Amino acid sequence: MNPQLLLNNIRGVLTRLEDSIIFALLERAQFKCNQKIYQPACWPEPESRESIMGFLLRETEKSHALLRRYTSPDEHPFCQGLPAPILPELRFDENPLRPNQVNLNHTIRSLYEERIIPFICQPGDDSQYGSSAVCDVHCLQTLSRRIHYGKFVAECKYRDETDAFLEPLQRGDREALHRLITDERTEQQVLQRVKRKAVSYGGGGKVSPGSEGSLGIEPEKVAEVYRQWIIPLTKQVEVLYLLQRQ
Amino acid sequence: MNPQLLLNNIRGVLTRLEDSIIFALLERAQFKCNQKIYQPACWPEPESRESIMGFLLRETEKSHALLRRYTSPDEHPFCQGLPAPILPELRFDENPLRPNQVNLNHTIRSLYEERIIPFICQPGDDSQYGSSAVCDVHCLQTLSRRIHYGKFVAECKYRDETDAFLEPLQRGDREALHRLITDERTEQQVLQRVKRKAVSYGGGGKVSPGSEGSLGIEPEKVAEVYRQWIIPLTKQVEVLYLLQRQ
Repeated sequence: MNPQLLLNNIRGVLTRLEDSIIFALLERAQFKCNQKIYQPACWPEPESRESIMGFLLRETEKSHALLRRYTSPDEHPFCQGLPAPILPELRFDENPLRPNQVNLNHTIRSLYEERIIPFICQPGDDSQYGSSAVCDVHCLQTLSRRIHYGKFVAECKYRDETDAFLEPLQRGDREALHRLITDERTEQQVLQRVKRKAVSYGGGGKVSPGSEGSLGIEPEKVAEVYRQWIIPLTKQVEVLYLLQRQ
Repeated sequence: MNPQLLLNNIRGVLTRLEDSIIFALLERAQFKCNQKIYQPACWPEPESRESIMGFLLRETEKSHALLRRYTSPDEHPFCQGLPAPILPELRFDENPLRPNQVNLNHTIRSLYEERIIPFICQPGDDSQYGSSAVCDVHCLQTLSRRIHYGKFVAECKYRDETDAFLEPLQRGDREALHRLITDERTEQQVLQRVKRKAVSYGGGGKVSPGSEGSLGIEPEKVAEVYRQWIIPLTKQVEVLYLLQRQ
């Protein structure tokens, strides 16, 4: 069995990514919403029609593409037209995924800018445009990795219970597929764990009470980002992947 | 009093940066040393004479410079010849620092590549060059910000006890200045707190025992990075700043 398809290994990756996502959201929430950084017309960058954040996202993806980031089956770029890798490509002989074109980054970015940012950050503008955009790029990359990891989850579930999937797949029945991949008990466990971690990290490891290490975001909100956006988008990736898998 | 010189505010920033540094080191320690990424001759990038990590550091600093990162008094670039900001410069009317040229990033980078990486990462090569370099850039930027924050600490200490500093400054007596800025009790508190945070973060918030969320670095090692490198370099910044301050 390919180690990337062992459920324990997949869970290990997802749990690690929880830490990264929680920490990235906490870092972003230090700054206000700074809506201007998402509006293309709000700054003088001449060439692209991108916002400040979009500009930084593209520049970051360009350099990461040169280092072959997007040749890995668990990485998906937000931008198109990125340069080819300078580093010789790694051979992913063991890529267990079927060829597919599932990439929800356009949706992830819109939801992030329009819903998640106003949800986790204080409203207003503190002029910290560069710092906020740096955090945004990190948040988006980490969210994208977590959500698209649904492909590995789906492949694993499909191989474990192929018979159950065949008929809904033949019918293209998204709702039935959605029911098949849903495991409410695990979802509840994730939400509880995320909340506990957010308490722990947001409190500076609960080392000292008071303001020290306090990052200005309620642990419930981090769990709510998982409940409202991350888990549903992951499941959407799983369904879309299964539909393209045949 | 400028709020950037209130000791409580400075401590708040340093405590926040502890979280960022610990998390960044934990993220890097997922991957092996991958020494190749620090060796310029080990990859085919044609133009610069930089290593893989150095290439990514420069590309990252280029885009951050465009977003005016290095116009902030608490930010210091590793690279030279960076482009001018596209964003209109923020006016730091309240910059409380005296003009100075203190920038220890060359030393920070050498120590990081040659000492800290072999100390926190498993030896060997896992081919995760891009991922490791992305973590490295984040580690270096965060370490640099923390260490150069010593300038604010030094300015604060100088203003609080100007008389005590005058004579050693006139003599250019580095050892006496070093003694004056040293507060061993606070250093011990920092080391203890860093270790406790590293336990908490590295254990996935101690949510669940066992391997889940375990990032493969001992909490003692994170505290040791502080003891051996971060605290001494911060104090070096403080002394150099004071010597240039007059």
